[in-house]
Amino acid sequence: MRIVVDAMGSDNFPRPDVEGAVLAAREYNVEIILTGDEARIKPLLAEFQAGNLPIHVHHAPEMLTMNDKGMALVLKAKRKNAQNSMAIGLDLVKSGEAAAFVTMGNTGAASVTAYFRLGTIPGVDRPALAPVFPTRTGTCVVLDVGANPDCKPNNLLEFAVMGSLYAERVRGVKSPRVGLLSNGEEAGKGNQLVRDAYPLLEASGLNFVGNIEGKELMAGEVDVAVTDGFTGNVMLKTAEAVARLILETVREKIQTGPLTAKLGGLLVRPTLRSVRRLLDPSEEGAAPLLGINGLVFIGHGRSDANAVKNAVRVALAAARANVVDAIHSDLAQRLAASTSAAKVSV
Amino acid sequence: MRIVVDAMGSDNFPRPDVEGAVLAAREYNVEIILTGDEARIKPLLAEFQAGNLPIHVHHAPEMLTMNDKGMALVLKAKRKNAQNSMAIGLDLVKSGEAAAFVTMGNTGAASVTAYFRLGTIPGVDRPALAPVFPTRTGTCVVLDVGANPDCKPNNLLEFAVMGSLYAERVRGVKSPRVGLLSNGEEAGKGNQLVRDAYPLLEASGLNFVGNIEGKELMAGEVDVAVTDGFTGNVMLKTAEAVARLILETVREKIQTGPLTAKLGGLLVRPTLRSVRRLLDPSEEGAAPLLGINGLVFIGHGRSDANAVKNAVRVALAAARANVVDAIHSDLAQRLAASTSAAKVSV
Repeated sequence: MRIVVDAMGSDNFPRPDVEGAVLAAREYNVEIILTGDEARIKPLLAEFQAGNLPIHVHHAPEMLTMNDKGMALVLKAKRKNAQNSMAIGLDLVKSGEAAAFVTMGNTGAASVTAYFRLGTIPGVDRPALAPVFPTRTGTCVVLDVGANPDCKPNNLLEFAVMGSLYAERVRGVKSPRVGLLSNGEEAGKGNQLVRDAYPLLEASGLNFVGNIEGKELMAGEVDVAVTDGFTGNVMLKTAEAVARLILETVREKIQTGPLTAKLGGLLVRPTLRSVRRLLDPSEEGAAPLLGINGLVFIGHGRSDANAVKNAVRVALAAARANVVDAIHSDLAQRLAASTSAAKVSV
Repeated sequence: MRIVVDAMGSDNFPRPDVEGAVLAAREYNVEIILTGDEARIKPLLAEFQAGNLPIHVHHAPEMLTMNDKGMALVLKAKRKNAQNSMAIGLDLVKSGEAAAFVTMGNTGAASVTAYFRLGTIPGVDRPALAPVFPTRTGTCVVLDVGANPDCKPNNLLEFAVMGSLYAERVRGVKSPRVGLLSNGEEAGKGNQLVRDAYPLLEASGLNFVGNIEGKELMAGEVDVAVTDGFTGNVMLKTAEAVARLILETVREKIQTGPLTAKLGGLLVRPTLRSVRRLLDPSEEGAAPLLGINGLVFIGHGRSDANAVKNAVRVALAAARANVVDAIHSDLAQRLAASTSAAKVSV
């Protein structure tokens, strides 16, 4: 099984990307194809002593950056002979030479390029970015967090089906509990979108537990949380910002506090570090862009080698679980069931 | 100046409500009217030795609870001779006998009752609940967080005007920086609502700094954050849930950790407690329901006496700043300016 890693993705490309690929090849017994600037990648492979590992370099003379957006990005993403590291990597997935594509690059650029090069799974209207949130008892797949700022009820149903399948197949959760993110737990709460999506989820045959708030999500009461990409994105970024604010404030108060606080701070430092690690997105490496007709994983720009390595691990698990085929067959069934049930209930 | 406090609001009513009113009367030199069950309030006033304080009791034989919602609530809220503690309290504001109404009761019940008994300020389409978030450098007024799950661009403009005025008049911020909550900082980011509201805010004459994410909000880069009530509510509850998760995890890891962690935990306990206090909504007491034609403040059901006292302080400040009149005159000007500017730019 082969995984493509975009060597030009992370903020500090190509070092963390190449080092992470090397670590993954060493640890997971997986073949890696690195796409990007050969002249910059090869010396790093030598430095990381990757000589005997199954790592190939596929030269890509161009790359997409944070500046790629809008119509110009669409044109680049569609161009037949696109020479950037994302397009070349995604084409390797399309041709079957690789099982998944991993990048730490611009989320928008990766999503748009994936959309035009691989298309969507038949039956999927909108792909969704589905990261994993840490919770009190484990993790929760949240989708969408940004690919679709404006959604229709049917999109949320698709997200629920795809998220549930992903939690089950890749994260090993039996009969994943699916919640609909809302401004109150009771049925009937929500904006128009949530109120319209609720009956579709209810009729889907999924293990739908109803509306949830951030409280239930963080408490680990669901395995999948469904929301539109605007709300999901605001929630994700707020959660990250609040976590950072609290841990920084604790550190600052310890540093500027009395001697007892400083001493206590030294003693609890390993504890605080372990909490920070719990909240660290690099443990998951990258989030799948579910609904694309091929496996695509997108990680944080600030990823280090460890995050890249973990992203390859997650991509490998998804490839072994055959997630794309599973979504394809399951979605058709559920959409039919949900639509007919909704019709009956009307 | 007189403030009405709903004695039947908090989860543990009427004790925290009455005690908070007593503390406020003692500390802020303000006259208080308590609405609620006289037979339960009077013994508490005696217990808290309120004999010589300017506290009046206005008997209300009924009360609204968490079960009051939907059409039944609307009917109760509209009823001419409503006898519940919220309606009676709000009528005292309407008649001019009191300058503001404070309750720790059901947010939905309080909002709907306020809407029907006081109406909205002319020019305001939708009132907005506007709590204060703690940030790295101070605080930020966020609105709406729940009164309006579905908004139009013009509603966000109203929220911006009202939030800015509130930050300036009541919180003493000069030329408050107003941000529009979005899924990215650049202009052009956002869902349809945000993209449509952006030019209205730009033309409003407010100190509009553009789109913001949770990061900028928590970093203290704006004084007012504008959003629809659905997104705002999800954000608020997620922020609370993340904060709780982190502080609980830290405590748990200290308790189950090695002896050094336990000792360190004892030494940093005052530090952690001060961080928790920073995040404690009771410091602000209650959030204003801006846009109602009268001052209404709604606090958490789990408020203690201290939170009730703080809510009276905030209500008093708003009454002294003449917030309702200010919104009335300012809104008319800004809406006219923004609408004509938006027309010109089209």
